[in-house]
Formats: sequence, C-alpha cells, structure tokens
Amino acid sequence: MPRTKGDHEARRRDVSEAVWRVLAAHGFGGLTLRAVAAELGASTGLLTHYFPAKRDLVAHALDLLDRRSAARPRRAGGPGLAAVRAALLGVLPLTAEATDSNRIWVSSWDTALADPGLSEEYARKYARSRDKLCALVATAQERGELPAGDPARIAAGAQSFVLGLVVQALFAPAAFSPQHQVELLDDYLAGLAAGPSADSPN
Amino acid sequence: MPRTKGDHEARRRDVSEAVWRVLAAHGFGGLTLRAVAAELGASTGLLTHYFPAKRDLVAHALDLLDRRSAARPRRAGGPGLAAVRAALLGVLPLTAEATDSNRIWVSSWDTALADPGLSEEYARKYARSRDKLCALVATAQERGELPAGDPARIAAGAQSFVLGLVVQALFAPAAFSPQHQVELLDDYLAGLAAGPSADSPN
Repeated sequence: MPRTKGDHEARRRDVSEAVWRVLAAHGFGGLTLRAVAAELGASTGLLTHYFPAKRDLVAHALDLLDRRSAARPRRAGGPGLAAVRAALLGVLPLTAEATDSNRIWVSSWDTALADPGLSEEYARKYARSRDKLCALVATAQERGELPAGDPARIAAGAQSFVLGLVVQALFAPAAFSPQHQVELLDDYLAGLAAGPSADSPN
Repeated sequence: MPRTKGDHEARRRDVSEAVWRVLAAHGFGGLTLRAVAAELGASTGLLTHYFPAKRDLVAHALDLLDRRSAARPRRAGGPGLAAVRAALLGVLPLTAEATDSNRIWVSSWDTALADPGLSEEYARKYARSRDKLCALVATAQERGELPAGDPARIAAGAQSFVLGLVVQALFAPAAFSPQHQVELLDDYLAGLAAGPSADSPN
C-alpha cells in the first residue's frame, strides 16, 4: 500500500515527540540522532532522512521549543496587575508540561550563547517578552495598581525575577514547589506595588 | 633536561587556561579535546594524558568553574543591607571576568540538569548561596533596613532576581549594561525595603 500524506504527517509527529522527550530528559547536550532513534524505536538511518546533519536536528529542536511554548495554554488574567501576574505565572514550571518546557529552554541557552546568530535571536525573543510585559505594567500603573516609573524597567526586573526562579525550581523542585513559587512571585509583586517609582532616585 | 615539577605545574595551568577560554567562547556544548588542543596549540594526544575521557574534561571544567568562582574578588559590603547588595552585585556580570564566569555557569546548567548527581550538587550549591544571603538578610532586618518576614524567603527571591538578570544580561549586553544591571538591582532592593513582610498575607 502506498504511504499516504497522513502516514507521513503522523511519522513526523512521532519524530518530534521523540526529540522532545530526549530534550526533556537529557537536554541539548544529550540530543543526538542515536538518542532520538532509540527513543523512537527506529534506526538512525531513518532519522537521517529527517535530519541530514546534527545542526538540522538542533534547528528542529529549537523550532519545536518555540512552537510548543507559543501553543502552551496561558492563564487568563484580568486587566492590570492581575494580567502582569498571569503573564509571569505563565513562565514558571508549575506543571509537568511547563517543567519540561522550561528545562529545555534553560538547556538551550548553552547552544544559543555559543552561536552569535542564535544569541541575537534569543535576545530579540526576550525583548519581545519584556515589551508585552511592559504594556501590561503600564496598564497596571494607569489603574493605580503599581507606582509610577519606567514600565520597561519594571518589566525587565520582573522578567529577571521569573527567569531566575525557573532555574532554581528546576534544580530544587522540592524546595521550590509550585505553591512556593507562587508565594515568591506574590512577594515580588507586593514589593513592586509597595515600592518607590522605578526611576526615582533612591 | 629533565622536566621539573615547576614545568609540570605550568603546563597544567596552561591547559586549564585553554579549557576556560574554550568554555567562555563555546560553552560546555563546544568543549572537546580537539577545541582545547587547538586553543593550546598542542596535539589532542597530549591532552588525552590529562583527560583520558570526555567526562574527565567536563569534570575538570566544572572544578575550574567552582575554584575560579570562589577565588573571584568579591566586593566588600558594609553590614546589613549594604552586605546584601554587595553579595548580589558579586553575582552579576559587571566585568569581563564576571561575564566569562557567568556565561560558563549558565552553559553548565544543561550539563548539570542532565546528570542527577550533578543536579543535586548544583541544588546544594545554590542552597548554600541562599543560606549565606539569608544570614545577611536577617542582619539587615535586625538593623531595621528590611521589613520583618522569613529571611530565607527573601533570600530565595533575591537569588532568583540576580540569576535571571545574569541570563538576560548575557543575551543582551547592550540593553543590560553594568550600570543598568545595578539600577535594576537597586530597584529590586528598594521594593524589598518598602514592601510588606514576606510572610504577611497579601
């Protein structure tokens, strides 16, 4: 029987799933054609059809990470500070799925920092996240929920806070339970709300 | 002429320097005997004398990272909140040397997360940093410079903040100049000082 387009698509999905599982377990450092083939129960030969070279495999993995991150369901936040909180909660490894995704993101930093083009792409990605956060912060300021001050600066601080919390939670999941992560984020937001304007002299 | 102990030590230092430069430029993902040999202008054969297997090279690199981080000159802080600030500033990539070291730390996370033993070691390392920070926070609280509340919780938040700031500064050094990093840290500390107690209901 001839292979249908459906078979082809299904096989591509299987390959992507296997790449994802290898990344979640071993990171980019453990991403090899052999590891993906073992995960898939297929031959390395089959995989070279999809990924002629190691860099094709890495490119697919990075693309997968982007697409899965974009597709991850995000918490609906109310307007203002609630939306800032929801956006920051959406970054944290509070579920098994978000933990895998974050573990793969953190792992990808080594690969990204070693490649100037990729490094710039990551910088743009994080700048876009900060821009989105900045707009939410500005709304929270308009509503009087956050003090005045440069919203971009507040967004850069908030993004730093959650990225570092991600790293600590990945290394010490018991010490940084989902509940504790949320408490720490709420402490941070309480500090922002109570603090002086970000650009006031202090 | 017979090789002296001094020659041997000098050669070991050269090898370590070469490993460090490869890590700073290419991360753990780019750490190979071949890359170190090229950096050193030596043969791969010579290096297998020092590192019989890839894992010996990685172990040396991790050890080097630990020792260089411990030996990095730290800012002297006054007591209390000034000491908290000095400890956090000591983490940030504010100099070329601290940038290399941080870039290598971030790169090592992929390697560490993929290895359960190493992952636990990293978790203990970060827990020790938080403990030190916790003691400084408690002193700042006693001096009335920070509000009451669980100092361990404040330390965990502060460590998150600086780790995430490190990551952002590595990807976007122009957007996160040393001066801007210090401003963002000072915003964070101002929020802590003005904020409600960390364990008060909010």
